[in-house]
Amino acid sequence: MSISPDLAEVARNARTASRALAIATQATKDAALHAMAEALVARSDELLRANAEDVARAEADGTPANIIDRLRLTPERLEGMAQGLRDVAGLADPVGEVVRGGVLPNGLELRQVRVPFGVVGMIYEARPNVTADAAGICLKSGNAVLLRGSSSARSSNAAIVTVLRDAVASAGLDADVVQLVPGDTHESVKELMRARGLVDVLIPRGGAGLIRSVVEESMVPVIETGAGNCHVYVDAAADLDKALAIVLNAKTHRTSVCNAAESLLVHADVADAFLPRVVAALQERDVTIHGDDAFTSYEGVVPATDDDYAEEYLSLDIAAAVVPDIDAAIDHIRRYSSAHSDAIVTDDQRAARRFVAEVDSAAVLVNASTRFTDGGEFGFGAEIGISTQKLHARGPMGLPEMTSTKYVVVGDGHVR
Amino acid sequence: MSISPDLAEVARNARTASRALAIATQATKDAALHAMAEALVARSDELLRANAEDVARAEADGTPANIIDRLRLTPERLEGMAQGLRDVAGLADPVGEVVRGGVLPNGLELRQVRVPFGVVGMIYEARPNVTADAAGICLKSGNAVLLRGSSSARSSNAAIVTVLRDAVASAGLDADVVQLVPGDTHESVKELMRARGLVDVLIPRGGAGLIRSVVEESMVPVIETGAGNCHVYVDAAADLDKALAIVLNAKTHRTSVCNAAESLLVHADVADAFLPRVVAALQERDVTIHGDDAFTSYEGVVPATDDDYAEEYLSLDIAAAVVPDIDAAIDHIRRYSSAHSDAIVTDDQRAARRFVAEVDSAAVLVNASTRFTDGGEFGFGAEIGISTQKLHARGPMGLPEMTSTKYVVVGDGHVR
Repeated sequence: MSISPDLAEVARNARTASRALAIATQATKDAALHAMAEALVARSDELLRANAEDVARAEADGTPANIIDRLRLTPERLEGMAQGLRDVAGLADPVGEVVRGGVLPNGLELRQVRVPFGVVGMIYEARPNVTADAAGICLKSGNAVLLRGSSSARSSNAAIVTVLRDAVASAGLDADVVQLVPGDTHESVKELMRARGLVDVLIPRGGAGLIRSVVEESMVPVIETGAGNCHVYVDAAADLDKALAIVLNAKTHRTSVCNAAESLLVHADVADAFLPRVVAALQERDVTIHGDDAFTSYEGVVPATDDDYAEEYLSLDIAAAVVPDIDAAIDHIRRYSSAHSDAIVTDDQRAARRFVAEVDSAAVLVNASTRFTDGGEFGFGAEIGISTQKLHARGPMGLPEMTSTKYVVVGDGHVR
Repeated sequence: MSISPDLAEVARNARTASRALAIATQATKDAALHAMAEALVARSDELLRANAEDVARAEADGTPANIIDRLRLTPERLEGMAQGLRDVAGLADPVGEVVRGGVLPNGLELRQVRVPFGVVGMIYEARPNVTADAAGICLKSGNAVLLRGSSSARSSNAAIVTVLRDAVASAGLDADVVQLVPGDTHESVKELMRARGLVDVLIPRGGAGLIRSVVEESMVPVIETGAGNCHVYVDAAADLDKALAIVLNAKTHRTSVCNAAESLLVHADVADAFLPRVVAALQERDVTIHGDDAFTSYEGVVPATDDDYAEEYLSLDIAAAVVPDIDAAIDHIRRYSSAHSDAIVTDDQRAARRFVAEVDSAAVLVNASTRFTDGGEFGFGAEIGISTQKLHARGPMGLPEMTSTKYVVVGDGHVR
């Protein structure tokens, strides 16, 4: 399969635009971000009209109410998008940061410096706010972005990109640093995945199916984001009040997010004390527990299958099991975890140390809810996604994670 | 295509072995490296016997002498491999390094810590010394390694791995941290590229064809290494004595390496002064110059085609052109460079600054030979390859580049 002339042209324009953006000053980029924020608010009428088309189409198609809610823009949500752009303007510019540097024994100066990737492709679903978020983060990190949102949001995304491009141009940057991928068929996603050399990095954001297909099929390097089968392990030495609070927070604070807990493991030594409390508290919050034999002895708990332990429910469901010891907990997590965020609740220093060393996930938490794995909570100020791969970036990705580096070597006629 | 049971078993054993290795102390790993070094020397007879089989087979196949030379082991080369392992033992352990850390406003402690990838796949050609180098670097960085060398070196590689595994086991580590990929057909390489989940990272080292096929076909994340169409640009403000020394060094110091120069660009203002000198000096060293019209007016210079400017000769050939200004030089490099290492020779600070900012290569050099882009020269002590991709690592990769990170979050019952 080849690249369509439309995509090739868009990508080439992005490359050209990216070169000027890569050496733009922070002041210029921040001015563009503020202009983008103002434009989203000033032109909210046309954005809401475009969004109403998407919502009407979705309703006519019988789309579930929760999906339509995610699709819908309101003046408040537009203001939120604008504030997100202003927040990005307030962050430090990662481009040009000297990561390490010094003088070599032969007198050569060596510096490793952050530089933009160049052209970033974003493939994402549903929420149109991602369009503005991604454009802002890419612009501040010096990258041109090719946006491929879901077709259900096509009118909204087109309108948002039009508004953002006008604002970018008004600030003196090339509007082609923000572009939509032409076409909204599945073929256009496939093409983007084959645009090696035209696109430097692809970032899929969305459901597990989308991410898996991009990761497996893409010839462009991918940063994998998002899937989260997160565990809370309540150790023998846990403070059970804290354990209860953490389980409830991790499971019910927000169920549709990747850092929500999907599995609960309880050490056998505290099962008798903890299970009655956690079962009652979860059920009181309408959580369905899919449990092993120890859990199904409580009323209302349904038996768990192997699939339940592997499931990312993103709903008021949790898989649960009692484990004989911390080794079994770690083994269970190694087998089923998506390596996003896994937590231990314990007051035992040795147990905490073992869990941290032996659970190989993007975030390992001790006595804290899995919900803390988040760019905002980590103080990054903006987040393009949460990487669950080991290459390049792992965990919440802020502005520095949206850059590469290059080595600058300065001599005075040095030869080997 | 599925994964063969043989590869799946090897990979699973590597995963298991990698878990203990990931938490092994530096002392244990260094003891293993020293044992590996000693074993290469102590068992040199069996290694040389195995290598003689490969050499005899290559000779019977009519393999060119320079390839046979790369394949051949000698007591000196074995001592060199052993010394490489001892050098790696002397380097700092990247695992456990706190990359950043602090306390969040809510009291959560946040640390980003280096951890091994887990299981690394190496696909490489010809030289059997890569087998020991890769095993040592992977072991020190806490990674199990699956080695897939070229079939022409199969007896040597099998013998080296046997010796290294015995040494690893003698130091108390699981021998399965170093394994050969079973089978030496092309299918076994394809399988390795599909072993997503079993292998965390693939690193191809070798010719452009090998690297391109791995990069395009692999479902396992890849770190691309090696291809180098490196440029030297002699600016209008160059010190021509230094420029000549740098061109000669970059082209002729070693021709078969990726950081050798393959293209020479000369600013028109210094063409009359520089071309006679550089043409004569290169020809004196038996370099064939493939030049544009300005160069072909000198005797012995052959006309360059577009392909010449794109070529990684790895031989005593160089493509050459005169450019009207630095913009044309930068444009030429953007069009043809493999983005490995590109150098400017100039005493003009503004020209140097522009070149550094606008040439987006893994290494950009000012008044220094491209030959300096090298892990040893950069002071990394060991190098697994030179990355020419933008994700994860760019430029020479030392031990830290062979790791991922994880976030460790420690609270006291923290919930959102």
